[in-house]
Parts: sequence; C-alpha cells; structure tokens
Amino acid sequence: MRIMRAEQFGLKREVEYGSPEQNEVVRTIVEAVRTEGDAALLKYTEQHDRVKLDAASLRVTQQEIEAAYAKVDAAFLTAIREAAVNIRAFHEKQMRVSWMDLQPDGTLLGQILRPLKRVGVYVPGGKAAYPSSVLMNVIPAQVAGVPEIVMVTPPATGGKEGIDPYILVAAAESGVKEMYRVGGAQAIAALAFGTATIAPVDKICGPGNIYVALAKRAVFGAVDIDSIAGPSEIVVLADDTADASYVAADLLSQAEHDEMSSAILITPSTKLAEAVAAEVERQLATLPREAIARSSVDNYGAALLVDSLKDGIDVVNQLAPEHLEVLTADPMSLLGLIQNAGAIFLGPYSSEPVGDYFAGPNHIIPTNGTARFSSPVNVDDFLKKSSLIYYSKEALMANGDKIITLARHEGLEGHARAIEIRLEKERGIQ
Amino acid sequence: MRIMRAEQFGLKREVEYGSPEQNEVVRTIVEAVRTEGDAALLKYTEQHDRVKLDAASLRVTQQEIEAAYAKVDAAFLTAIREAAVNIRAFHEKQMRVSWMDLQPDGTLLGQILRPLKRVGVYVPGGKAAYPSSVLMNVIPAQVAGVPEIVMVTPPATGGKEGIDPYILVAAAESGVKEMYRVGGAQAIAALAFGTATIAPVDKICGPGNIYVALAKRAVFGAVDIDSIAGPSEIVVLADDTADASYVAADLLSQAEHDEMSSAILITPSTKLAEAVAAEVERQLATLPREAIARSSVDNYGAALLVDSLKDGIDVVNQLAPEHLEVLTADPMSLLGLIQNAGAIFLGPYSSEPVGDYFAGPNHIIPTNGTARFSSPVNVDDFLKKSSLIYYSKEALMANGDKIITLARHEGLEGHARAIEIRLEKERGIQ
Repeated sequence: MRIMRAEQFGLKREVEYGSPEQNEVVRTIVEAVRTEGDAALLKYTEQHDRVKLDAASLRVTQQEIEAAYAKVDAAFLTAIREAAVNIRAFHEKQMRVSWMDLQPDGTLLGQILRPLKRVGVYVPGGKAAYPSSVLMNVIPAQVAGVPEIVMVTPPATGGKEGIDPYILVAAAESGVKEMYRVGGAQAIAALAFGTATIAPVDKICGPGNIYVALAKRAVFGAVDIDSIAGPSEIVVLADDTADASYVAADLLSQAEHDEMSSAILITPSTKLAEAVAAEVERQLATLPREAIARSSVDNYGAALLVDSLKDGIDVVNQLAPEHLEVLTADPMSLLGLIQNAGAIFLGPYSSEPVGDYFAGPNHIIPTNGTARFSSPVNVDDFLKKSSLIYYSKEALMANGDKIITLARHEGLEGHARAIEIRLEKERGIQ
Repeated sequence: MRIMRAEQFGLKREVEYGSPEQNEVVRTIVEAVRTEGDAALLKYTEQHDRVKLDAASLRVTQQEIEAAYAKVDAAFLTAIREAAVNIRAFHEKQMRVSWMDLQPDGTLLGQILRPLKRVGVYVPGGKAAYPSSVLMNVIPAQVAGVPEIVMVTPPATGGKEGIDPYILVAAAESGVKEMYRVGGAQAIAALAFGTATIAPVDKICGPGNIYVALAKRAVFGAVDIDSIAGPSEIVVLADDTADASYVAADLLSQAEHDEMSSAILITPSTKLAEAVAAEVERQLATLPREAIARSSVDNYGAALLVDSLKDGIDVVNQLAPEHLEVLTADPMSLLGLIQNAGAIFLGPYSSEPVGDYFAGPNHIIPTNGTARFSSPVNVDDFLKKSSLIYYSKEALMANGDKIITLARHEGLEGHARAIEIRLEKERGIQ
C-alpha cells in the first residue's frame, strides 16, 4: 500500500454513464417492454437469461419459497432473522408522522406524510446477489408503510438452476409477498410501466449491472429510482492507539468488493501507516479474493499522512467517503467535526462489517463523494409529503390584498383575480 | 371547457428531455466551463446574453442591491417580507435534529443530520423571474442551516438593463449574500464544477429554460439537483356547494401560467360543471393572458364528471396533481382518502394563489404525476444524514459470530476476518 502525504493524493472517480451502444440496447428493451408488455419481457428473458418462461410462470410460487427454506442452513437463518430485527428497530426510529398547525385566525397548515403505494426491489443474480441487501432495501420501505413491495431477480444465473434460495428466504423474511423471476433492463421497464403480469410501481431500488443502472436512469420520471451506487469506499482515520491489524483487516474488507473499491487510511502517525501497510500485505496473502483486493489497494488505496487528526478530518470531508471508521484515542471528540461521511464507525469494535450486516443502520450508502449531499437509504425514501392549506376566511380577508400585490407584480392577473373575486364577494356580503 | 365523463379523459404528458442538438449544445458548454472556468463562463455569457463582462464584474455588488431597494415599491416590500415570515415559520416546523440511541450493551447507534454546505439557486431571467420562487428556494435551505447560499441569474434579458430589482430584493430579503450575474447552462456548470470566481456548490435548485434543465441533468452526480419541473397543474374537486366563479377563477389562475398548464374540475354535479364552464368563458374574456389560458383550457383542461366525490378522489389519486383544491361541503372528511397530491387546498378560502405566495408551504411542488413519489421542496432537501455506529466490545463479542456467518455466506471472507481478528484478540486477552 502506498504511503504518501495527503496533499499528493488525488482520488479520481468517474460516473458510469454507459457507452452509446449500451444506452441504445437499453432504450430498445425499455421501449419494447413499455409497448409490448409481457411478450417483450419474456422475449428478452429468453434472449439474455437463456430461460424460456411464459407469463404464468413469471411469479415465484409459495412452494418455491418453502423449498428455499429447506435449503438454507440454520445458522444463516438465525443470523439474518436477528439482523432483520436490528435493521427494523433502527429504521423505526427514523419514522415520522404528519403534522398540522392550527393558527389563531383559524387557518390550518400542515404536512401530510404517506408511504409510496408500490415499490420494486431489484436483486441482481450471480455473485452480487446479497441477501443482506434485500433486507436493507425492503425493511425501510416496510417501516415506511409501503403496502406493496415486489422483488424481481433474474430467473437463473450462468450454470445455476433457479433463484438463489438465500435470496428467496431473505425476501420472505423481510416480508416480500410478491416476487418475479425477471432481471435486466426488461425487469426495470416492467416495474416502471407495468405489464399484464407485473403491475407498475412508484419507485425502483436495488443495485444491478450497467444495463440495469441505465434502465433505471431511462425510466426515472415515470417512477422514482434510488441513487446509482458506485464502487465501495472506506476511509479509516486512525492515530497511534489503533491496532494496525484491525485497520488493515477493515481496509481489506472493502478492497475485496471489487477492483474499483477504495480503501484509504488517514493518519498523523508514520509508524501506524507503516504497520498497516505491512499488515495489509500479510493479510492479503491468505485472502481468497486476494487479486481483487490487491488491485483495489494498489490503484485506489493509500495511507495518507497528515499533520494532525483535525487535518485528517479536513481530508475526510473532502473525500466524503461512503464508510468512515475513526480508530483514535477519543473518537467521539471528533464526531462534531465530521461533515461528509455516509456512515461513521467509531472505536475499535465498530468494524465496518458490523454495519454491513447486523447493527441496524442501512448499508446502502452514498458513494463517489455524494455523501456531501445525499444520505444512506432510509425511511424518508419511501414517504412522500403533501402540503395542507385550509385558509380561514379571516386570514383571506386580512391577507388577500398582499397576495394580490405579489401576483400582480409577477404579471399573473389570473392569480390576483382568484383572490379578488373572493374579497369582493365576501365584502359585498358583509 | 370540455365537459366529459372522467373515464373518457386521458391526460397525456411527456417528459422533456430536449433534442439531440440541444443536448449537444449543453454538453459543449458544460465541458468548456468545467475545463476553462471563468473564460468559458464569460464567453458564453457574451454569446447568449449579449453582455460583455469580466470576472471582476460577475458578482452583484452591495451598491446594486441597495439601488434595487430604492426601485421596488413599498407595498411589494411589505407583502414579500410578510410572506417570508410565513414561509420561514412553516419550514421551521419541518426541521429535524440528529438522534442517538444508547443500547443496554453500550452500543450507540444514531442518525446525524447536517445541512449541505453550499447551495446554488438559479433564477431565470425575463418574465419567468418570480421573486416568490426565490423565497421558496432560499428559505428552506436557510432553515436547514445551509451556511452558503448563492444565487445566479442572467445579467440582463432582452432589451432590459441589468437584473430585475425585485429579484435582487427578494434574494436579499431571504438572506442571500452572494449573487452572480450569469445564467444558462454556463451558470449551472459554474455552480457544479466551480470557476476561479464562483466556488462549486453541493446542490443546484431553481427553474430555468430547457438549456438550464438539460445542464442540471448533465451535472447531476457531481452535485445534487432539485426535480425538473413540468407545466403547472390544478385539479379542483367540487360539489354543488362550490361557488362556480371561485372554481373558474382558480382554474384560470393555473391555466394562465403557460399553454401546457392543466386545469381540471372533477365533480359529481353536471350543474356545477356547466356553471364553471360558463364562468371560465366569462372570466377568460377579460384576462390579460387570455390566449395562453384559453389554449391551456382547450388542450389540457376539462370538467370531468364522476358518480361521487369518492370516485372523484380515485381520479385525483390517478392524476397525482401538483395542486388539489377541495371545494365541497365537508372537505376535511375527504382528506384521509387523498393519496397523491403535492399540495392540498381545502375549503372556499384556500384559493391556490394563497399557497403560491403567502401562507407558508412551498410553492415548488411535484408536477406531471410525480406527486406519487415525490414531495414539495422542503427542509429535508437541504439536509443529509449520516449513520453513526459505536459498537461496544460486549456487542461485538455477542454478535460477532453471526456477522461472520452472514459475511461468509456472501463469499466476503475479508469481511468475516475483520470481525474474526477482533474476536480472536479479545478472546485471547480475556
């Protein structure tokens, strides 16, 4: 792992918008599903997933879900059930309610919160099919009160038969009652526009490959989408008190995700930087995903030296990492200075996988510097607000002329007259 | 105005993505400003706004703001100050704070809310320069605690000299301290990527023409953007008790916005529908923006007949209008049934301009059916959340094995080892 001064480091990231060819493929698929419905959905499923289905077999049956339960091991089921309890408890604390404010003149103003009606969760096939991500997408929607949550996932991947039973169990455990074996851009289009078999949703979330990401972009507006995740990132801010083996292990836990992942140590301690670099090498040697992790560490990783922890925080705030661990003598004292970080892990026992799997906070977190302005997936993502205005006669009589002044200034005479006609009538009556 | 059964009506709206040529123009401008900074900003300002500036003259001076105050009339200033007080009060009720939850095992979990650091507000030139919209964008950001709010607006429009003084006063009144005379795609690019003169922001909001909208799309990801507004819409749900002249005036107050605006009455009363249609004709005759409003009413407006108010609400929920007025005998009794509407106006005195200008709720509201999943501009739009995890040693020792199980199942051995290395060390120490 490179050791360098923080000033010399430039993290360069690009947003993936896809090639013109990929965009064209997606446009064609989305348009076909939008206009032809199930027929196109089945055609592209056969073409891309090499699975021939009919409309009646798209939906995952209750028997398949029960069969999946028979296949997963007991330790997994225990762990994921407990994780679900924790995730639910954390997200329940995010829940908000409508409010109304009755004013002295009889006017009632308010903000009404309602859940979205129907949400689609995309679960990719293959190695990227993480049961934990199913929980992290479904549970916040459920806590928000979304009555219909539907999962889509490719019918099979590569040589495998059927859908991963762990995914089916994770979905069932988190409360999904409606699942379809469709993936790719065609699944996104079906969720956005609906087909005879799959009713359209209000929002689509969940990760996927480049075609899925481009399809989500293409249907945005017709439905809401979640943010499009970039490669995973971790920054560890540490001082001499940190255990180098912990720091190295945590860096590698992100580096192993993919070659584009970024794992960065920021420290005022050259000694710690050197110890962590040595530990990274030592631990890499026996890591199953060594090649991926090594490429990530070499290309996007570094140990960055700073003059002080406060200078380190400045670098953190510039990077705005997805995950930030603070392994210092007094991590809580630094919390107030951290402006930009999606999830903050404090102290030696808050290893990032604790948050990935179990503690309760969401593991879908803004990447690529977007923690500057966006947030981990949370209950608000599945609620919408409506403003409520019940203006009293007294309020209108008192304020009507001011409203007319503002409307006339903006050249909107129709707006002014909508108020004026009421003032005239009420004054006439009085 | 057409009168028809609700089932016969199809509101067809398309999202405006711009022509390939417009997209290419925007890409060129954005890329030039990103790489060349002020030089490109000034070049395109001269080209598109026909105003030659240098970097030193981009920023609006304190003297200009003072001069603007001298030009606006007193009634306007009074009205906008009072509106600002109401808008601030409403948005302050939306404000939320961070929370932490200390668990029995010593684990601390939480959600930290922080304002974005810097926000850019775009204000279009010309007739679409609405002082009220400045307030509606700036005040929520201010209430959220955004320390830097910067306004950009074209240096002059058409024959006019300089920036509209009403816009400068509205910005100053809502607390903007930093204003630049730049507009168009070049202003959006400057806000997104920064130039020597204009520091980059975290979020860009505010309406603009098609080039501004396309530029916002193009820079999204580097910064956050607000939603891209479509034409304005109003739905009035009314029964026999409604005053046809009020309903007609309110419909026209939206219809006058532009030819694409939509104004729809939904009612079980044929008598009311006919009376409103007659009133619309009568009021149109003397409306200054008659041509616009008539085109809007003819093409996107209608009186829709339904069997009952409840059936009417079903139509409302399908349309998901930006503005909904309920002018019925007991409007409050219908509130619980309204699922999709950006802003809800209840009763005869809650004419929509009350909300556009004065009552307090935001007037920037989801259009084009997106109230199904999105919300009026609000304080949350200027806050970001970070998750906080301070896991205790006790919690890690108790749950570490479950976390390892989940990580290993997902094939992420590095994740498992980050936990395992701690368990082994702590168990060795104990």
